Formats: sequence, structure tokens, C-alpha cells
Amino acid sequence: MARWAPDTRERLRTAAMALFAERGFQATTVPDIVARAGVTRRTFFRHFSDKREVFFGDDEIPAIATRMIETAPAEEAPMHVVLDGLRRLAAERFDPRRDQVLAARRIISEEPDLRERDLRKQEDLRAAVRDGFRRRGEDDRTARSVAGLTVLVLQTALETWLEDADGTPLQDHLDATVDRVTGLLDTGR
Amino acid sequence: MARWAPDTRERLRTAAMALFAERGFQATTVPDIVARAGVTRRTFFRHFSDKREVFFGDDEIPAIATRMIETAPAEEAPMHVVLDGLRRLAAERFDPRRDQVLAARRIISEEPDLRERDLRKQEDLRAAVRDGFRRRGEDDRTARSVAGLTVLVLQTALETWLEDADGTPLQDHLDATVDRVTGLLDTGR
Repeated sequence: MARWAPDTRERLRTAAMALFAERGFQATTVPDIVARAGVTRRTFFRHFSDKREVFFGDDEIPAIATRMIETAPAEEAPMHVVLDGLRRLAAERFDPRRDQVLAARRIISEEPDLRERDLRKQEDLRAAVRDGFRRRGEDDRTARSVAGLTVLVLQTALETWLEDADGTPLQDHLDATVDRVTGLLDTGR
Repeated sequence: MARWAPDTRERLRTAAMALFAERGFQATTVPDIVARAGVTRRTFFRHFSDKREVFFGDDEIPAIATRMIETAPAEEAPMHVVLDGLRRLAAERFDPRRDQVLAARRIISEEPDLRERDLRKQEDLRAAVRDGFRRRGEDDRTARSVAGLTVLVLQTALETWLEDADGTPLQDHLDATVDRVTGLLDTGR
């Protein structure tokens, strides 16, 4: 039966995101989502606690960051570890899904609740990177600075990538952001 | 009468912050605050819409940033404008009030609601700096990068300043953060 299929979670998510884009986040109800996905209400609540969780349910980025930092060679410079990780993330998780990311971003921008949750996600990533580099033995200021740079570079590159209609890959926006930030620091002091 | 005194707003704030520190944010009620401040409930609601607003009511930092960016000489490099502004902010608004800032930070860290609002304040500052540099004619990537750096440097410096029991001024933490961030970028690519 459909509700036991391994893709139920993904099906619910696809249905929900389509409805959010069509009708707006507020106007979409859980009954709408289950009707579109063809599953029962109970199935919905086996996978998600509410529709906000459907929207943000798969934020594995902090966990991915933690793993990448843990497994990077000990001698590798912190920003090398971070930029390597961000480039892989871009190629694997963002560049192939620009349309979905853009649709999600539009829904977030209209919904104060989702914007707050989105900010908390950035903060979760910052904490994961900071803790990861502390565990590698970096001092507190370094760990916090690397974490701040990670969020700054990812966030800025995502924003310019999503506004760029040319289809330039996110990886190029990451590199351009790092260059710009470096240049600003070099000329500003 | 007290309720017309120009310092009523400040008196309510002082009473509220003392109670938040003593009893916690959740356990403190508006009646507690007005009793401590010696004003009526109506007076409270003339100044604030709720106790969250008492806590965050005086966030003038985005407006200050906007003014500083507007009035900086046109030829001044973006990060020079930002660091000049942050150093002035540190000397005038943070260094003289470390104990209050520390008490506020402790209350925020225990209260998810306040943490979210605090993240939104950071986002408001980021938007104000980004828009300010756009108005100065900077391109989008530069405006966003400067804004991200502003929040990163202020946030990181505030955190290390508040954890530093030695009484090193925030200004020194700002400079140390900028040096660290610059060094990380120079060695990491």
C-alpha cells in the first residue's frame, strides 16, 4: 500500500511544496496536502509534526558540515575545509535543484514564521561549524570566525545565485563571494 | 506625576531587566514589572506592546548604521566605513555597559522566543548595511558581502568580548576578529 512505500515522505513533500507555491503557505492545509499526495492524515503525522516541518524537514546541512569537518585531514587549513565542503554541497545539493530552491525561497520571503525558522537554520549551521572546529583544536575566536564566514559565504552566494538568471552555477558564486570578501578586507583597514 | 516623567520608559525597562535577571523572562509578568517600576498597567502599554518589546525596544543599531553609511565620505572604502562605525558603536554603546549586555545575553540564551528575535535583529542590521551600500552605488555582491561581514564581525566580537573576563574593550575584540577573518581567508584558498 502507498502509505508504506519508502517514498511517502518525499511524495508528501512534493505535494506540499507544489501547494505552497500555488496557494501560499498559510492557505495550504494538512488535508490539502494529504489529498494531493493521496495518503491519509495519519500517514502525514507519522512523517511530520506540522506543515512547517514539511517545509524544512530535510535540513541535513549542519549534520553534513559536522561530518565533513570531522573527516577532513588534520593538516588542512580551516577555510580550505569549509570551501571544499561548500563546493561539494553546491554541486550535489543545490545546482541540480535551482528551481525548487528558488520556489522555496519565494515562499519563505512571504512568511515571517518561515523566515524566522530559516534564520535559525543558519544559526544551527554556524553552531555546527564552530563546534566542529573547536573539536579540531582551533581556539574560540578562530572557530567562531570560520563559522561566521561559512554562513556569510553560503548565504551571500545563494542569494546572488538565485537572482542570477544566467544559470551560472552556485560554485562560481561561492568563489566570487570569497574573492569579494577577501578583497573588501584587504582594502578596508 | 511619575507616569508623565520623561524617564518612565527607561524606568520600566530597568525594572523589567532586573526582574528578567532575577526570575527569568517567562516567570516575569507585566503586573510584576509595573509594580516594580511604580507605574500603572496603562502606562506600561503606552510605552510597550508586550514584555518582549521591553527587552528589545531600543534596537537603534540598524538606524545608526544607515546614518553612518549615508554620511561617510564617498571615497571611503566600504570596510573602512563599517569598521569605523563598529568601533564608535563599541566605544559609545557597548564598552560602558558590559554588565547590562551580559545580563541581557544570559536571558536571551535561555529563551527560544528571544533568540529568534535576536536573530531577526541581526538580519535587520544586515539588510540596513546592504541597502546603505547599494545607495552608495556598490554592486549587489559587494553590498551583500559588506553587510555579511558587518554582522559576522560584530557578532563574533560581542561573543568573545562577553566571555572575556579580563575587561578587554570590545574595540580590541573587533580588531582581533577582523585580523583573524582576514588571516583565515588568506591561508585557506
